[in-house]
Amino acid sequence: MHVWIGIDVGGQSAKFGLFDAKGSLLDTDSLPTGKEKEPEAAIHEMALHVRALVARHEDAELSGIGVGVPGPVLEENIVNKCVNLDWDVVPVADLFQQEGFTCPVKVENDANVAALGELWQGAAVGHTSILFIVIGTGVGGGVVINGKVVSGVHGAGGEIGHMPILAEKAERTCGCGGHHCLELAASAPAIADLARRLLAETEEASLLRDQEISAKEVFDAARAQDPLAQRVVAQAAEVLGRAIAILTSTVDPEMVVLGGGVSEAGETLLKPVRDAYRKAAFYALQETPIVRAELGNRAGMVGAAYLVLQ
Amino acid sequence: MHVWIGIDVGGQSAKFGLFDAKGSLLDTDSLPTGKEKEPEAAIHEMALHVRALVARHEDAELSGIGVGVPGPVLEENIVNKCVNLDWDVVPVADLFQQEGFTCPVKVENDANVAALGELWQGAAVGHTSILFIVIGTGVGGGVVINGKVVSGVHGAGGEIGHMPILAEKAERTCGCGGHHCLELAASAPAIADLARRLLAETEEASLLRDQEISAKEVFDAARAQDPLAQRVVAQAAEVLGRAIAILTSTVDPEMVVLGGGVSEAGETLLKPVRDAYRKAAFYALQETPIVRAELGNRAGMVGAAYLVLQ
Repeated sequence: MHVWIGIDVGGQSAKFGLFDAKGSLLDTDSLPTGKEKEPEAAIHEMALHVRALVARHEDAELSGIGVGVPGPVLEENIVNKCVNLDWDVVPVADLFQQEGFTCPVKVENDANVAALGELWQGAAVGHTSILFIVIGTGVGGGVVINGKVVSGVHGAGGEIGHMPILAEKAERTCGCGGHHCLELAASAPAIADLARRLLAETEEASLLRDQEISAKEVFDAARAQDPLAQRVVAQAAEVLGRAIAILTSTVDPEMVVLGGGVSEAGETLLKPVRDAYRKAAFYALQETPIVRAELGNRAGMVGAAYLVLQ
Repeated sequence: MHVWIGIDVGGQSAKFGLFDAKGSLLDTDSLPTGKEKEPEAAIHEMALHVRALVARHEDAELSGIGVGVPGPVLEENIVNKCVNLDWDVVPVADLFQQEGFTCPVKVENDANVAALGELWQGAAVGHTSILFIVIGTGVGGGVVINGKVVSGVHGAGGEIGHMPILAEKAERTCGCGGHHCLELAASAPAIADLARRLLAETEEASLLRDQEISAKEVFDAARAQDPLAQRVVAQAAEVLGRAIAILTSTVDPEMVVLGGGVSEAGETLLKPVRDAYRKAAFYALQETPIVRAELGNRAGMVGAAYLVLQ
């Protein structure tokens, strides 16, 4: 039986999925990652896990390894810096091949592979052109046109968390060094931060007062009709909706898919984002659907397998 | 001899070019256009001009007609509203074929064909992924990825003049009905308008005082070191540079090409745009070249021919 491995390499863990030719997920595994591991050692460890995962299945013949990584990827499957892993330029495919694999190895940015995952098996099944936005600790994205990821010349296609949408310089500095990034207005930490600032600025009663605040608490409070929390969500949604309107006027996709931890807020996030989007969007694009991702944190693993299975 | 016709349909005139198989421009013609002509009558007139143009060349055999139009174009070569021509939904290719042409007829948005023109014979020769921005009475654009125009599901790919980049609602309303469009900050009328506002707000001496102001006068004055004119150019360039940085972080092209009447200001525009771009751009994208278009108002005609010649 031919099998394919999809690996989603994150800042905290690498998730492994073993797929058959139909794209069914047969088995999974995972492994802690982190900045303290050198890239060569990290990939050696991943290679051991791939072998062990394949060995668990009798007659399994490994036919390809797809890898999603949290950084820009150049044409030759070379990673061009991963801040979260403290990787510089790392020839990921070459390093896997040096571990003795003879099957094809393909590498793409993690948000791009998640976009492919949603296209293949998730919210965008049956579509060929989508915009995928993942909102969590950071904001990432993937642009897929006619079934192909727009990777870009520097591997920075779909780096929409770093689009300089903020006209005014933000107080905080983005992980990328920028001060105008979408990520500074719409990531989970940015949402929590905005709530903290509004709480500090006013005496207004709020469910969020005197507690630890994360984006989840903000959305929970907004759902419970807390006015301050609702203002926070509205502000983040306004920027996100406008960002999506900028993106649709550029690539005019069939659908926009929102994933990542923040998208778990569901309609509490999606409805204000759709409202803000329609207000900002070009007239021909106001009906472009904005939907929630369906694969959750499996999207990267699935899309990584799709890189070598497609 | 096989020949191909490229037609660039504008709000004031339609330009016709006759090309050979190598893409050399052998002959041209033009025709006034305008809102008073019904689309069927306008296309009938264009058809007569095509026939006359081909007939001027002995043994010429018409092998294709490419048409660029100032509006969104749907997949089936149908125009979906041209504000400048007062066209609603017009099946341009069908209408040409009803005029008796049996050769292929392809239709694309005018900025998209101009992008293809620059890629084929202009500033971006040898490239496959570019972002083209045309700045004149309006602001338009074309995104080309791997040699193909990103037309979009609603024909609105590259409609970057209508990207809602302005966070604050602008005083004026865009032709599209929007209030946050790039066009409201960076088109020729927007630049002239900003100069008029700054002149009215201050008593500052300026070469621009007490004269009719167009974008050209603003750039001439900026070149002559007029501080007020330089501030106007800097403001427009700041928004344009940030818009380009948003676009490169989305599609990461090899090159950005600026065309249209405003780009004739040359380095007086390009230098501040590049400076603003570098300040705003994602670190991996700061060296993306921003160059001036080379084909001038021939770009549309050339790119339209490329639609059927490629």
